[in-house]
Amino acid sequence: MIKVSIIGATGYVGAELVHGFINHPEVQIVNLTSRTFAGKLFSDIYPVYRGLCDIELTDKSPAEVAAESDLVVTALPHGVSSQTVPVLLEGGARVIDHSGDFRYKNLATYEASYKLTHPHPELLEEAVYGLPEFYRDELKTARLVANPGCYPTCSLIALAPFLSAGLIDTDSIIIDAISGVTGAGRKADLAYSYCEVDEAFKPYGAVGHRHTTEIEEQCSHLAGGKDIVVSFTPHLAPFRRGMLASIYAKPSDCLKEVTNAKINEIYNEFYKDEQFVRVLDGLPDVKAVAGSNFIDVSGVYDDRTGLIKLFSAQDNLGKGAALQAIQAFNCMFGLEEGTGLRGLVKGV
Amino acid sequence: MIKVSIIGATGYVGAELVHGFINHPEVQIVNLTSRTFAGKLFSDIYPVYRGLCDIELTDKSPAEVAAESDLVVTALPHGVSSQTVPVLLEGGARVIDHSGDFRYKNLATYEASYKLTHPHPELLEEAVYGLPEFYRDELKTARLVANPGCYPTCSLIALAPFLSAGLIDTDSIIIDAISGVTGAGRKADLAYSYCEVDEAFKPYGAVGHRHTTEIEEQCSHLAGGKDIVVSFTPHLAPFRRGMLASIYAKPSDCLKEVTNAKINEIYNEFYKDEQFVRVLDGLPDVKAVAGSNFIDVSGVYDDRTGLIKLFSAQDNLGKGAALQAIQAFNCMFGLEEGTGLRGLVKGV
Amino acid sequence: MIKVSIIGATGYVGAELVHGFINHPEVQIVNLTSRTFAGKLFSDIYPVYRGLCDIELTDKSPAEVAAESDLVVTALPHGVSSQTVPVLLEGGARVIDHSGDFRYKNLATYEASYKLTHPHPELLEEAVYGLPEFYRDELKTARLVANPGCYPTCSLIALAPFLSAGLIDTDSIIIDAISGVTGAGRKADLAYSYCEVDEAFKPYGAVGHRHTTEIEEQCSHLAGGKDIVVSFTPHLAPFRRGMLASIYAKPSDCLKEVTNAKINEIYNEFYKDEQFVRVLDGLPDVKAVAGSNFIDVSGVYDDRTGLIKLFSAQDNLGKGAALQAIQAFNCMFGLEEGTGLRGLVKGV
Amino acid sequence: MIKVSIIGATGYVGAELVHGFINHPEVQIVNLTSRTFAGKLFSDIYPVYRGLCDIELTDKSPAEVAAESDLVVTALPHGVSSQTVPVLLEGGARVIDHSGDFRYKNLATYEASYKLTHPHPELLEEAVYGLPEFYRDELKTARLVANPGCYPTCSLIALAPFLSAGLIDTDSIIIDAISGVTGAGRKADLAYSYCEVDEAFKPYGAVGHRHTTEIEEQCSHLAGGKDIVVSFTPHLAPFRRGMLASIYAKPSDCLKEVTNAKINEIYNEFYKDEQFVRVLDGLPDVKAVAGSNFIDVSGVYDDRTGLIKLFSAQDNLGKGAALQAIQAFNCMFGLEEGTGLRGLVKGV
Repeated sequence: MIKVSIIGATGYVGAELVHGFINHPEVQIVNLTSRTFAGKLFSDIYPVYRGLCDIELTDKSPAEVAAESDLVVTALPHGVSSQTVPVLLEGGARVIDHSGDFRYKNLATYEASYKLTHPHPELLEEAVYGLPEFYRDELKTARLVANPGCYPTCSLIALAPFLSAGLIDTDSIIIDAISGVTGAGRKADLAYSYCEVDEAFKPYGAVGHRHTTEIEEQCSHLAGGKDIVVSFTPHLAPFRRGMLASIYAKPSDCLKEVTNAKINEIYNEFYKDEQFVRVLDGLPDVKAVAGSNFIDVSGVYDDRTGLIKLFSAQDNLGKGAALQAIQAFNCMFGLEEGTGLRGLVKGV
Repeated sequence: MIKVSIIGATGYVGAELVHGFINHPEVQIVNLTSRTFAGKLFSDIYPVYRGLCDIELTDKSPAEVAAESDLVVTALPHGVSSQTVPVLLEGGARVIDHSGDFRYKNLATYEASYKLTHPHPELLEEAVYGLPEFYRDELKTARLVANPGCYPTCSLIALAPFLSAGLIDTDSIIIDAISGVTGAGRKADLAYSYCEVDEAFKPYGAVGHRHTTEIEEQCSHLAGGKDIVVSFTPHLAPFRRGMLASIYAKPSDCLKEVTNAKINEIYNEFYKDEQFVRVLDGLPDVKAVAGSNFIDVSGVYDDRTGLIKLFSAQDNLGKGAALQAIQAFNCMFGLEEGTGLRGLVKGV
Repeated sequence: MIKVSIIGATGYVGAELVHGFINHPEVQIVNLTSRTFAGKLFSDIYPVYRGLCDIELTDKSPAEVAAESDLVVTALPHGVSSQTVPVLLEGGARVIDHSGDFRYKNLATYEASYKLTHPHPELLEEAVYGLPEFYRDELKTARLVANPGCYPTCSLIALAPFLSAGLIDTDSIIIDAISGVTGAGRKADLAYSYCEVDEAFKPYGAVGHRHTTEIEEQCSHLAGGKDIVVSFTPHLAPFRRGMLASIYAKPSDCLKEVTNAKINEIYNEFYKDEQFVRVLDGLPDVKAVAGSNFIDVSGVYDDRTGLIKLFSAQDNLGKGAALQAIQAFNCMFGLEEGTGLRGLVKGV
Repeated sequence: MIKVSIIGATGYVGAELVHGFINHPEVQIVNLTSRTFAGKLFSDIYPVYRGLCDIELTDKSPAEVAAESDLVVTALPHGVSSQTVPVLLEGGARVIDHSGDFRYKNLATYEASYKLTHPHPELLEEAVYGLPEFYRDELKTARLVANPGCYPTCSLIALAPFLSAGLIDTDSIIIDAISGVTGAGRKADLAYSYCEVDEAFKPYGAVGHRHTTEIEEQCSHLAGGKDIVVSFTPHLAPFRRGMLASIYAKPSDCLKEVTNAKINEIYNEFYKDEQFVRVLDGLPDVKAVAGSNFIDVSGVYDDRTGLIKLFSAQDNLGKGAALQAIQAFNCMFGLEEGTGLRGLVKGV
């Protein structure tokens, strides 16, 4: 069994990691840490896991955790991860980190986006961006994996087939995205209280949301290095889990005779070997990916405006966070990529 | 008292019309008709109105209703309205119609959009588009008012200051909009059942939604007659009431030195005399307009992409339908435009 | 105009008081106080009221507020009200208080229930329990009104016709009640965050909830002074506004030949002159009272078990709190009891 | 692999059966039938299962299905099951039926409760009531299992330790229960549309709900044969999945010195070997059992009224229906009872 620990186990991402790992046939969870809840059981915080995960939460040091683990998953705030992860690596553990701290190759972009000085910029080069669909080979031997942001995953999976083949005008990309409330994390905050969020819907961070630059760096990579700037606008929607991206772009000159069928064909061809990317004939719905590592994509061509519209839906805690991390873990440890993940869907 | 009747009173638009009219100091409701529920009380269908509106629903003919009313509001499907409204007009009543049947000046656009032959095209010319902010004067004497669609209202209020002054590139308009579930009407339909809609979010009608051409015709009008084509994509969100439009456009050459403050100033100047258009410093939330005739707007400039982002939020049944009809009614009958409407807000 | 101030205006009860009072034709709001948000506008906290109530929140002292007001409504925590209210009375204002501090005649019961020593027990005698249906006459001249608790209102309206005529066995009363989330107040608390409350349902305070003794004291009063002990169990349900009580009791020997019709007749007779108590033929639904001061009641007889089942539904912020306070206010100031209240319903 | 078929696979119970069985290591699903959707894929109806269960729905006859299956699970309406199940048994399959048709030993009670004449009363004797906690041994060899109703499961698990030891007064049992909306099934019905159910809460079937007699027959069985009549009142709550029973009863003379601790001890002792019954120190919440086969129970003693209050929470589609059927299936086929079930929980 592979020994896995989670640092910051009681947030929603941490809890979904537990959900995935307790169902994983090759994993033994050895440590769950929580500064706030140390001494309690994980199932005290998430009663749904009573009888399934009654591990006691600890506040063991990163060094201790690393010493006892083959893999440590960190679900920590940015700025904290950048200080904790190096200790874990030094302690000999492999690491999947959920913050933005290791997602960029370009240090300046990171520091401008997060308004932080990175204490370990040397690790940016080494870190592998944990999107298995694009970095499967690099993950096999990665010591440090930066789990992608939720909005970037949703946007990049939708855009990749078009960017990598030069099929869209890279100056024209507009991403309009919505997230469920778990995206804001588990915390006491009036803004996310039931009475404030129910029957509400709003944009936020309309200019300068951090995920914008993460999307751009990866878009550039997909497009062969060309600098790309995208318009990105997130919204908060009144449900717990799920994320949808609606993306508008102009076809490039390389894309002749665009039709809905052509777009569908491009997606099907690009993702034909992927088990977690589902290409739809119709339009995606966040409901259909809830609780899973699936991401559903489709697109249409609007001949009146000459725009391509691409849509992707995922569970923000699933493919958008914790379950994608387990997919990357499977790559890292030489397991079949769907191990422990395929059965994970929410029913009705 | 002005005698008002509602034809099709038991749908959600009809019910919200009742909500508004029973609180209106100058109105007496004289007829509520419903083919399905004739013989029952309105409050049997909507128990919240027990003791407030216990009028018996009838299936009186349009001619009878017209004879007894100063104003008839029709909340009927398109294709039905176009046959009923002429009878009402002939009967001497003034009419506000909620369908798409009289919203277009261009017959061909209507017929292509609705896939119907219009039985009374001569009325298209006469009908006034019931957006008081733009057609206040025409409403005063209008015999027939076409109440605007919900998405068009939300989009046009956001775009008008920019279109009418030539401040945006009219080839660049992308409208991404979401609606609450009441937008689908009151009906037994699995697609709108609680278990299907809760925790769901999806685009629909991604190409060719009928409101697209309605938005375009009015945009052209606002822009001084120039033909305009817009990209429009609606989504269904899991709440009952509310609508948000997120609109992306490029500034035109006429708009120098765009900033957030400049956009705010343009809105404030354009809507300075409007009591139902609220210009925000922050971003709008559908929660803040629920149950009201208010529409909240604001915009930002994204200097990285050179795009303007405009946002507007309204209640799809309020400013997006029934309450806007009452605002138009106030114009038609020489009443102060906010009569009976200003107090209508949902509390907590 | 009657000058009204609200102390603690930014909680959900305070906000609903504003909702009611801005629609009240005889009221001028003169002060809204908030320790936390002083200096901001009320509409900054509740953006739905932009343009409708842009009064600046202050932290004026109770003495200042009293000097400027005919009526002060306090929406403060228990223990705070008992110290603030006497200052307001001394300052010459009449007061409606929303806490539990003045709801009891029996000091010992209050002190045991709230685990507090009352600083002004002399006011308990004077305070009028603000349920207009039972204390209409006393309210006319009341200087201090204790607005009833939400669960007590819901329970007492359902029980009163039976208790006051001795029709139920007073040893057999079991009240099972549920409340919407606004009942917990407006605050940053993980327990009431969207992700915790959505799709949740649970009992709480299963023994010893404070409203139990308030219900009992009023039941005793209704039953002619006899000591009554009731079983009371509250639950939290995933919606914002609404409260339902399901009450089980045995008929007493005085109630011969119980039937559904008989129960209905008892209700209709008892409440025949009440405009806000609606006696239903069917079963109540919290949806039908949302946003209003209505309370819907009905009952059935289960001949297999010999139990009467009584049901009542109200809006916990409406008849259960703020709107009932306005009903009491109308009594206090000689206005028709439904003034400003009858139109207040939430539409669809 | 054990060959399993589901007749009526596209309702919510059918879908949750699929959810459970596709994760079950010993099961091969061989047939999914649906009269309405024959010819479509299961994943067309439930897109969340795309790639996981793309079996084509058929309208094969019961005889055909039986011939191909070791076990057939029927998710059919009552009255239909009673005609279909005998055919399946004759065809050599073992059967788990989800309707009320085989849950009663007493034919007269069944016929009075369901207002039907049973076409195969001889099977009532043979059928085993599928509550593994009580009928584990009988299930091993059962040919026909009647899966219990959701409300009965929730009520009986809470009551059993007290009834079987004579610890409560059997004349005093009052059950107040709530169900999520999936309990009403998957259908186009205005009463269960999003806009009608959201922010609603109401009792229904306040007298004479069918599950009452099912609860009573099993209570009598648990109490050693004594006739028992219970008060049962269901409510509909605005969430998809979950069920809570709040049960009130008087201790019998056999239960001396009742305390909360004593009640907890009784539960712990009675259920100490059960993996799916979790005895809580606190109060149960439907959230904590969502998506699982767990049922959480606890109780308190109210010394003021002398009443015991028992609470139980389950997922109405989980332990209340489909997952309990899989637990029974495990018993029937000699598998460890938690096989394929223990990992099934909904995460955050």
